[in-house]
Amino acid sequence: MSLLVVGSVAFDALETPYGKVERTLGGAASYFALAASHFTPVRVVAIVGEDFTDEHRAVFRGRPIDLSGVESAEGKTFFWSGRYSQNMNERTTLATELNVFANFKPTLPSAYLNSSSIFLGNIDPTLQRSVLKQVRRKPKVVGLDTMNYWIERTPKELKETLKHTDILMINDEETRQLTGEHNLLRAAKRVFRMGPRTLVIKRGEHGALMVHNKFLFSVPAFPLEEVYDPTGAGDSFAGGFMGYLASTGSLSEHNLRRAMVYGSVLGSYAVERFGVERLLKVKRSEINARARHFLQLTAFKLQ
Amino acid sequence: MSLLVVGSVAFDALETPYGKVERTLGGAASYFALAASHFTPVRVVAIVGEDFTDEHRAVFRGRPIDLSGVESAEGKTFFWSGRYSQNMNERTTLATELNVFANFKPTLPSAYLNSSSIFLGNIDPTLQRSVLKQVRRKPKVVGLDTMNYWIERTPKELKETLKHTDILMINDEETRQLTGEHNLLRAAKRVFRMGPRTLVIKRGEHGALMVHNKFLFSVPAFPLEEVYDPTGAGDSFAGGFMGYLASTGSLSEHNLRRAMVYGSVLGSYAVERFGVERLLKVKRSEINARARHFLQLTAFKLQ
Repeated sequence: MSLLVVGSVAFDALETPYGKVERTLGGAASYFALAASHFTPVRVVAIVGEDFTDEHRAVFRGRPIDLSGVESAEGKTFFWSGRYSQNMNERTTLATELNVFANFKPTLPSAYLNSSSIFLGNIDPTLQRSVLKQVRRKPKVVGLDTMNYWIERTPKELKETLKHTDILMINDEETRQLTGEHNLLRAAKRVFRMGPRTLVIKRGEHGALMVHNKFLFSVPAFPLEEVYDPTGAGDSFAGGFMGYLASTGSLSEHNLRRAMVYGSVLGSYAVERFGVERLLKVKRSEINARARHFLQLTAFKLQ
Repeated sequence: MSLLVVGSVAFDALETPYGKVERTLGGAASYFALAASHFTPVRVVAIVGEDFTDEHRAVFRGRPIDLSGVESAEGKTFFWSGRYSQNMNERTTLATELNVFANFKPTLPSAYLNSSSIFLGNIDPTLQRSVLKQVRRKPKVVGLDTMNYWIERTPKELKETLKHTDILMINDEETRQLTGEHNLLRAAKRVFRMGPRTLVIKRGEHGALMVHNKFLFSVPAFPLEEVYDPTGAGDSFAGGFMGYLASTGSLSEHNLRRAMVYGSVLGSYAVERFGVERLLKVKRSEINARARHFLQLTAFKLQ
């Protein structure tokens, strides 16, 4: 299936206990696309500024990533700056400069209109909805990410977009905030009534839980000795998940379970280096090897 | 294998968003023994006061639980009182009255001296060590639980006891505190140098991680719609784990993985009712059924 992602392409300044980068390629759509492109071609819808040059576009080159939907506008590219605490558990946002992103109106090139698999990155739910309205046919699968900002400020618009969403991919706190329910299983039932049939709860170092109306599936985070930079882990998870799923063409239970594993694999690789560095270098053979490691990490026999 | 546990037998007063109990059977050794007794006979070493009557002993009756090592002393039984926050994430200790526990000197009845599987519950490491010194032969497996109090106040004694421990079963924060290392894999390597070959990190609602010097195994917590009372979840986990393991007589990788699952099964049942109530009623068929649910919760195929 053809996979379309809408979201941010950004420059990030990052500081972790392992070091510092001043200005590196970031943004949810960047991590997502690089992760997903290991499984399936990806079409990106985003906006960048004049400071986003051919050199930056070149990062995506040589991969099945279509940037024709990345609009170039007057002004600067979205900039985010953050610092992680010594144990990486806390993140302080030092700067968020929306720049050209403030006037983002996603417009799909005609070549994107037949996309059958869509991921609506964490942006204004009205813009997420506008992407869905542009595609020609009802997509086979729509995934969606959101955050506290939209849950608080645009709840109606978010709920409207959720009606057209198959898979909601958020963290525990967002799940609780969206539903007003602390218990995640009961929260999932409320999510099901909003539209999605599947809720994927991202739990960072604790892995991810899929609540489907027919089954539950839990995957741990891959235990790593070194986490260099947690930025983009969730977006890489989403990219691995949606990319794998789009490559199969079916939402069977087996595929959904595997999508959780491949999401976790890509998330775990993302954090091994700064920014998108590791996602650029990781090979398909390494992805497969780590998926087998997940099997060793979780498999048991009752007899 | 014959399984011995040393630890607290107590009265608890508990308050959770689901209700309140004024004085119910508690203590790590109680939860442990009830959980483990589903798999293997258990010998308990503990101390109780004059207020611990036949009626209280009767709770353990009809199960393969030997209470001949539970000493009855002048005074009152250990009493603990705690309150859980609305979302159960925080626990406030309202009272800890050591009572007879303050003068606990574990003494093993002669019938216990051949115990080959031993669990040293969370008590003074010097007392834990004294139990090991009393048994006739080197046990096949020694499990140990401890807490911040002992890590801070009796580090030397704890390290001495750890030299004789096979499986250390503590939570993430205790692991970090004991080793001075935030990353859990690196922390595990330091634990291995202290004696144990296996570290089981209990993570509450996030499940448990086993770090063995040859493999890693992760098990999620069982997602429940209602958690009535988290008290004793970790002790029930330890009981299920050690009980299952003792019943097999071998520390093979397969058995260690299954022990993690049965530990999680017992931990999940423990929290479904107040105090030990659910552990008293759960049937072996229910334990097996939930173990199969854990398989469904975690299983995936790569092809």
